Parts: sequence; C-alpha cells; structure tokens
Amino acid sequence: MQGIKVYEGIGIGKAWILKDEPVADKVVKGTVAPGQLQQEKERFEAALDQAILDIKALEKHTQETVGDEEAMIFDAHLMMIQDPTLTGAILQKMTKKNYTADYAVLEARDEVVATFMMIEDDYLRARAKDVQDVSDKLLEVLLGIQSSSLGSIDKPVVLFAQDLKPSETVLLNDFVVGIVLEEGSVTSHAAIVAKAKGIPTVVGIKDACNLVEADTEVILDATHGTVLLDPAEDVRREFETKIQVQKEEKARLAQLKGVPAATRDGHAVKLFGNVGSLQETHWVKDNGGFGVGLLRTELIYMDSDHFPTEEEQYNYYKDIVEVLPDEVIIRTLDIGGDKMLPYYTFPKEMNPFLGCRAIRFCLNNEDLFLAQLKGILRASVHGKVKVMFPMVSNLEELRAAKAVLAKAKEALRTEGIPFNEKIQVGIMIEIPAAAIAADLFAKEVDFFSIGTNDLCQYTSAVDRMNADIAHLYQPLHPSILRLIKMTVDAANANGIEAGVCGEMAGDPDMALLLTGIGVHELSMSASMIPKVKDRILASGMEELKALAARVMETSTAEEALKVLKG
Amino acid sequence: MQGIKVYEGIGIGKAWILKDEPVADKVVKGTVAPGQLQQEKERFEAALDQAILDIKALEKHTQETVGDEEAMIFDAHLMMIQDPTLTGAILQKMTKKNYTADYAVLEARDEVVATFMMIEDDYLRARAKDVQDVSDKLLEVLLGIQSSSLGSIDKPVVLFAQDLKPSETVLLNDFVVGIVLEEGSVTSHAAIVAKAKGIPTVVGIKDACNLVEADTEVILDATHGTVLLDPAEDVRREFETKIQVQKEEKARLAQLKGVPAATRDGHAVKLFGNVGSLQETHWVKDNGGFGVGLLRTELIYMDSDHFPTEEEQYNYYKDIVEVLPDEVIIRTLDIGGDKMLPYYTFPKEMNPFLGCRAIRFCLNNEDLFLAQLKGILRASVHGKVKVMFPMVSNLEELRAAKAVLAKAKEALRTEGIPFNEKIQVGIMIEIPAAAIAADLFAKEVDFFSIGTNDLCQYTSAVDRMNADIAHLYQPLHPSILRLIKMTVDAANANGIEAGVCGEMAGDPDMALLLTGIGVHELSMSASMIPKVKDRILASGMEELKALAARVMETSTAEEALKVLKG
Repeated sequence: MQGIKVYEGIGIGKAWILKDEPVADKVVKGTVAPGQLQQEKERFEAALDQAILDIKALEKHTQETVGDEEAMIFDAHLMMIQDPTLTGAILQKMTKKNYTADYAVLEARDEVVATFMMIEDDYLRARAKDVQDVSDKLLEVLLGIQSSSLGSIDKPVVLFAQDLKPSETVLLNDFVVGIVLEEGSVTSHAAIVAKAKGIPTVVGIKDACNLVEADTEVILDATHGTVLLDPAEDVRREFETKIQVQKEEKARLAQLKGVPAATRDGHAVKLFGNVGSLQETHWVKDNGGFGVGLLRTELIYMDSDHFPTEEEQYNYYKDIVEVLPDEVIIRTLDIGGDKMLPYYTFPKEMNPFLGCRAIRFCLNNEDLFLAQLKGILRASVHGKVKVMFPMVSNLEELRAAKAVLAKAKEALRTEGIPFNEKIQVGIMIEIPAAAIAADLFAKEVDFFSIGTNDLCQYTSAVDRMNADIAHLYQPLHPSILRLIKMTVDAANANGIEAGVCGEMAGDPDMALLLTGIGVHELSMSASMIPKVKDRILASGMEELKALAARVMETSTAEEALKVLKG
Repeated sequence: MQGIKVYEGIGIGKAWILKDEPVADKVVKGTVAPGQLQQEKERFEAALDQAILDIKALEKHTQETVGDEEAMIFDAHLMMIQDPTLTGAILQKMTKKNYTADYAVLEARDEVVATFMMIEDDYLRARAKDVQDVSDKLLEVLLGIQSSSLGSIDKPVVLFAQDLKPSETVLLNDFVVGIVLEEGSVTSHAAIVAKAKGIPTVVGIKDACNLVEADTEVILDATHGTVLLDPAEDVRREFETKIQVQKEEKARLAQLKGVPAATRDGHAVKLFGNVGSLQETHWVKDNGGFGVGLLRTELIYMDSDHFPTEEEQYNYYKDIVEVLPDEVIIRTLDIGGDKMLPYYTFPKEMNPFLGCRAIRFCLNNEDLFLAQLKGILRASVHGKVKVMFPMVSNLEELRAAKAVLAKAKEALRTEGIPFNEKIQVGIMIEIPAAAIAADLFAKEVDFFSIGTNDLCQYTSAVDRMNADIAHLYQPLHPSILRLIKMTVDAANANGIEAGVCGEMAGDPDMALLLTGIGVHELSMSASMIPKVKDRILASGMEELKALAARVMETSTAEEALKVLKG
C-alpha cells in the first residue's frame, strides 16, 4: 500500500482499525420476549455502569494530557448520562414496548434530542449534542464496538481509519505509533494533529481499512509512504534498527528544547508553532517553541453548535495565551472557502477559494467580527497577544477591519473591561495583491505573516487539492520567492517584522532559505520545531544569505530545489 | 427596470420579446379525425414551404452580413428539410396514426435523431443537429412562433430575451436598437456580440420578459442601465435629441476608420479587436481595427458536436486571417473553468477557475492540441498569424507547449504542407506568477498579451462573477498596475511587444493609462475601437506618461480612478 506522507518516520505495531460508520446504523430494531425483559434491563444497567467508567477514564486522561478546560466536556457527559430524562426514557421504552436495550437507547436518544432542539435557548440546545454523544457511547458498549476505546489503547498500534474527528484525535496516546488514513487531504484536521504530535502518518490510501485485518503486524514507513503487512523477520529487524536511529535522533533534538533559535553567528530567528487548540499549544511548548505564530480560530467555531460568544472566545484564547505568554498571534476567523460551519448556511459559490471567506465574510458580518475581536482584546491582558487579519487584498479592507477593532476597543472601554490598548495589528500576506503592494501595507500594520500555502495557490492559479494540476503548485517558483522577498524587504524598510506561517516554514531546507531571505519568524507544526531549530543552530547567516541569493537566481522550481538541496 | 450596462447608448423602439422555451414543449400530442387528415397534410405542406423560404432568406441575409462560410449551415438545413428520410417519417405518422402535423414532426424528429446518433461516423452524427434545427423550424411555423424570425425584424425594436444563443446573435440586424437580457453575465456570448456590434445593451434585469408586453414603446438608456416603458411625449423627445447627438458622434468617429492609431506626437499604438468568429472579425475591420489581438478559439469547439479536426480549424482560421491579414493572434484553446463542451465530460472541480483549464488541459490532451496547432500553422500562410498560449504559470509549461508546436511543424513538413516556419509564439500574461516572472518568460517568447480580466481575478483572489465580493475586483489596484508595468518593462528590456487584451483595453480612460505605461497594442471589442482611437489621437505621449506616473503613485483603486478621471 502506498500513500502520501504527512509526517515522516517509521512505526511498527498491530493494525488497529477504527470503523466510523454511525453506531446507530448498527442497531437492530428488535423486541425481547416479556420473560427476558428483566435480563435485558440488567444488560442495560451494566452497560450504563461501564459507559460511566469509560467517560471518567477519558476525562482523567484528557486532564493529564491536554488540560482542565478540554476535559470539561466529559463532566457534561457524566451529568447527562445519569440524567433521568434520558435513562427514564430508555427504561420506559423497554418496559412499555419490550424494545431491546439497543433499540430503546436509539429511540430515546432521538426523542430527547428532538425535545432539546425545539427549545429557544442556546445553552439547552447545546445539550442535544451531549445527549447524542452519551447515547452513542451507550450503544458502543451495548454493541461491543471498540471505537471510543481509542484512548485505552495499551500496546503499540498502527491506527487505520477513514478519517479522524477532533473528538477522536484528542484520544491519541503514545501507543499509537503510526496512522494510515483513507482520506487524501494533507491539510485535514487529522493530518494537522498527527503532524503536531509527530506521529508517522500517511494519507490517501483508498480502502485501507478493508485491506488489512485487525491485529495484523504492520510496518508503516511514512517517510516513503509505504505500509508493509506481516513483514518477514529480517525486514522487521531492519526497520527496528531504523527506529532505534530515529529514537536517538529524537532524544538528541529533545535536548534543544530550552535553546532559543539562532544561527551559529548569532542571528536570532523566532521559531513558533501553528496551533488550533490548547492541546496543540502544549505540544508547541513541549517541542521548544517560544510562541504561537498562527492561532487558527476556526476550530472554536467549527466544534460549536452556535457562533461562539465573546466570553467563550475570551476563555479559549486566555488558556492558550497562558501556556505561551511570550507571543501569540491570533488570526481572526478564516471561514468560508472549504471551511463550513454546522449552524450556518454559506451561499453556494462556483469558486469558493476565490469567494466570500475570511476577512470578507467578517466584514459582511460585523456583529460576529466584533464579538471575536472583543474576545481577543480581553485575552491580551494575559500575555503578548497580536491580532492578525486573513485574506486581505487591498488597503480599504485593512482600514475597514481596523475600524471594527477600534469599535471593539471602545465597547470594552465603556464596559470597563481591561485590554492592551497597544495591541499589535498585522495581516496575512497570502493574496498576491497584498504581497505586491506590501510596501503600502507596511505603513499601516505592525507585522506581516506570509501564508505560503494560499499564496502559492493564488499566484499560480492552482487549487492544490486538484490532483490533475497539483504539480503546478510550486513553493519554489521564482515568482513566489520574489513575492516573499518583496514582503520581507517592505517590512525591513518600515521597521516591522515579517514571518512565514505556511508549510514552507516547517520544511527544514526551506526554513533555511527563508532565514537567508531575511524572514524574522517561522511558524510551523509543533513536531517540526526541533528539526528546524537544529538546522538553524548549525548554519551561519552569511552562508544562508548566499544560499538564498543563489536560489533566487534560478528560473524554475526544479532548478531552485537542486540548488537548495546542494 | 435597472440593469447592468454592457454597451452604452440609447435605443428607442417597440418591445420585441424572444421566448426561448424549447418549441417542442409547446406541442400538443393530439390526433385528428380521419376526415380532417387531408386538410392537416396540406397544413404541413404549407408549413414546409414557408420554412424553406425562411431558411433561404436567412441564408441570403447571413451571406450578406457575415460571410459565405457562416451561411453554409443553412445549405445543410435546406438539404435536410427536403430529405425524404425526415419528411417521409412525418407524413407516415400522420397517415398511419392520425397524428396532428405538430405531433408528427416531433415524433419523426426524435426517431430520425436517434437513428443518426447510433451511427459511428462523425459527419452523420453531426447531421442529427441539423434534423433538430429544421424540425424546430417546422414546429415554429406550425405553431406560429416568431422566435426564428429574429432576422426578419423590419422596424426599430428593443429586444427582450432571457439570453441569446450564437445562432440567434447571428440574426441581429440593424433594426435591433437595444437589447435587454435577464441573465446577469457581462461576459456571456450575447454580451460580447452586442458589444462588438455596438448595440446599447443591459443585462441582469430579472424577469424582464414578463414585465413588458410585446409592442410596448420602450426607451433603453443603456448608459445608465435603465429601461423606460411607455414614455411621456416630452421624455421621448428628450431622448431623441440624445440619440441625435449619439448619431453625430458615431458619424464623426466613423471618419477615423482608415486612420492608424497614434498619439498627437506620433507614438503609434496598435488598436486591434478581440474576436471569436468571422462575423466579429468583419466588425473589427468595419470599426477601423487593423488586426486581431485575441482570436478566442473556444467558439469553434463549443459550437461543434465533436473536437474540430485540423482541417475544420484551418478553414475557420483562414477565413478570419483573410479579413485582417496584417496580424491575427490566435489563442490556443482556453476550455475548462466555466467553459464546457457538449461532447466531452470534464471532471467536476471544486474551484474550476483554479483548475485544469486552457494550456493545462491541452498539455494533458496532446492529440487535440496537436490538431489545433497544425490548423493554426496552416493558416499562417494566409497572413501574419501569431500563436499564443493561455494560462501559462511557469516556464516548464511554456517549454512543453513549444515542444508540441515543434511536433506539429515536423508533422506538416513530413506531409509537405506549407506553413510559416518563423511563426511568432507568445503567452497570455493572466496569472500573477507569469507577470512577476515576466523577465524570465520574455527570453523565451516573441510577445506578451496581458489578460487583465483573469489577472485581476487571481491577483486579488476574487471570482468577479460572485456578487458578494465583486467590489474587490479592481483593475486599478496598485498591484495590478505594477504587474502590468513589470510585464511591459520586461518586454521592452528584451525587445518584444506587450499588448493588453482584457477589458481594460476597451475602456477609453484606461486605454490612455495603458498607453502611458508603454503597452504596445490594445485589443478590444470591435465597437470600442473608434472611441479609443479618438482619445489616443487627441493625446500627447509625454502627457500620457505623466498621467501613468501619477496613477501609479496611488495606494488604492479609488484614488487611482480619481487621478485618471482628472
């Protein structure tokens, strides 16, 4: 089996297959004979006890590995699973209609969810999701399905799944030594988390879950994108040696955790992390990152069932800022395009990547934008918070966004709520128009952050998710390198910083190139920080400048890569 | 009623409404009493005679106003409508089943079309379309529908329609003094033709056809996008005065037809036309254009029911080149994106504008590309033909396209078919990556043509068809002006020409700006040539350079427009 590498390395373990068909689809809608009813009720009570134990274990695990805030969801689950509204409805369906426990849970779930959904109260409506979650948990126990036991894996496994939901990635523990996903996207949530945690991962292996049997011995060689089943003894030994080397290298890199990144000759570079959650922020810190160069705020919107309130946002950002108070750049909502919300209907667009997304959406929905900006401003008293606008294409948009920020400040002043009056404001440079006019923007912002992924897409007019033309997506295209240089030069001329937060920043070779071009800050997936730091520490600034000059003289991406790889 | 201006000016006439529901939908599937059969057959024979007369009139009209080549379709129609295969089938259904003439035509049509479609022969399959067309013609006569009488309009009318098909635009005569379309696109085929013919036109008036009654008196003020129904006498008189001014201005501009475009102080600028057909090429010549700056070759592919052969393409291009032999720039196929073909299934794309279109499609389909390049090369003996590749984003693509051109030349040499060995090769500059690296491309091509429409879309990451964000589509954005200047400077430094063939070229103010930046050639819709020529003749090159310098100093499109409008 051959897939696309997300995070390199080797993992050896037993195949562990996560089937994610809705558990409800597996319920047989049956009844029991009246004589068996008591026995069926006892089966339900036992399942309830087991589900409660499972949820408590999950809560403890999440507290230890992620944080109190993220564990709170399980408190809500514990309350709900013991709530007589739900258990009463289940038992009633068993008693009155002779339903099996499974069928009774399914019916009671739908009934209670429907009741909650009818209520005009955001808090109570949110409870519908809890009912759904705990009912699924109950059904899993009753049906003997292992999916939610993801967190209880206690031997080395290579995990096979179609895709992983956020609620599943939270459960990945150190026994998961490799991940194989059927879905093809290297930018999916699961891919981002796997990369941040540093788990060898490949994606895009169609039908992988059906091609392997549970508990088969598996060698995942993510570096080469290959999956070996039932390897021969000598092959296995060969890979175990490689893993040993990998471990030693990891241990060596771990030593660098407390060392600030700088070239041999003392040119400092900020090595920061791209994060979407508190969990990932901890990983950045664990990997020796001193700040967050890009806090994607989409997750708090996507994991909710309503537009998050100012208060919810404040709490979310505060927790993250408290982990890395030296610097956190919070990017305002970049929704639209391919990122949808469960509780909002976006108009259908012919070309969503060229559509009403990010700052365009926020400026059209000022109330939502104001709530987010107030949440960010309030978090700015807990550390050095900067605010950053995505997808800005012209000065009018920047000025309009700054006007809403001024309104948010004014509102907080009136309410007497503290915030940093001098919060720095920056923009993503990810649209060609912004890079080409970087000198004009530099006069009106405090910093730039170059988003190389989108910049490459727009500059070459290529949707990189489109397999037919993915070869035209070229970070080393001479035009991309020129746009990066224009942006950095404009920043320097105006005494502001320019960072890079696209994938280029996390590629060790490209990170050196960017440093040579003069980029001040590199923000990347947590797991890449040690490797990049190691390479920067070993390089001299003059040599990187010379390298950058040589690369910038090439005419094609292929030539550039050759020069870069030396 | 308020719409979007496509071509300005005023038209006064009676409302003429083109309903374009499929005529087949209106047929009542009935039978006649046996006693009435003879009468019904006579009705059919009369309709057949009338339809033949109509087609002959259309043919004559097309020959006179467009050309022999385009009139040939009606020869095929005449043969088909008199072919016993079709008429025999119709009469048989009337005799054997007592069908009404209308119903018999409908059934016979479907039967004969199905027979043709089963044949594995491109020529005969193409005849299926002729059967369809002449059957529709017969049904129109039988049902008394006026649609195909578009060409027989003989009093001034303002035409109301949902949209116009190519076969309908061919019929527009001088009595059509205004066009109102329900569809919203200013880049539709109908809009392009209306602009090229210089007919005052507005689009995007929803439900316009139902809001006006046939023969109502209408004043269309396309300059302001308004439609007035049943105007008062004084209003009518006011607009008639305006029309008189409009006519005098038109007569004055017509004097410039033979004058080559140059500034007062002798700086020559090539004023060329953008065309998609022979018809439009005649209009360019009639409006005083000396060449074709952009021959869009999509129409020959879209109006066909198969990929056009080398021979078909050669004939198509030859006719055009013979009209304006001084210079014709033929752009190779720009299909994909929003342009589809009836006989080819494109893969569904999430972002078609960032997808596998134009040169990307052609390089993936070398046989098709080769046939087109051979057709273009063969036309190069009839005049100065240049070949141009669209949507080039990197040098590798340009080199690959040139390799296919070399193959096409080699094949023609082998076949002993003459062509211009030194045919000039250029690229569209419409992707930011190409503009930013124009200095690298300039070393490997003979000319550039800047496509400002797509360049604006990609540079600002805006789909301009998306109404929510259309305000971000800004031709005067400082970055767009810089990209144009970079391209022109790179061309000058390498001794090659740079033209502009996007909509900017046809806007008189912007045309002056582009001339001031140093653009060598402006290619536009035929009807805009006289106005632009008039303005250039009245300007001095030094003053245009100074204007361009002032505009290029602005920071926003709004400021730029203010400076430009003086």
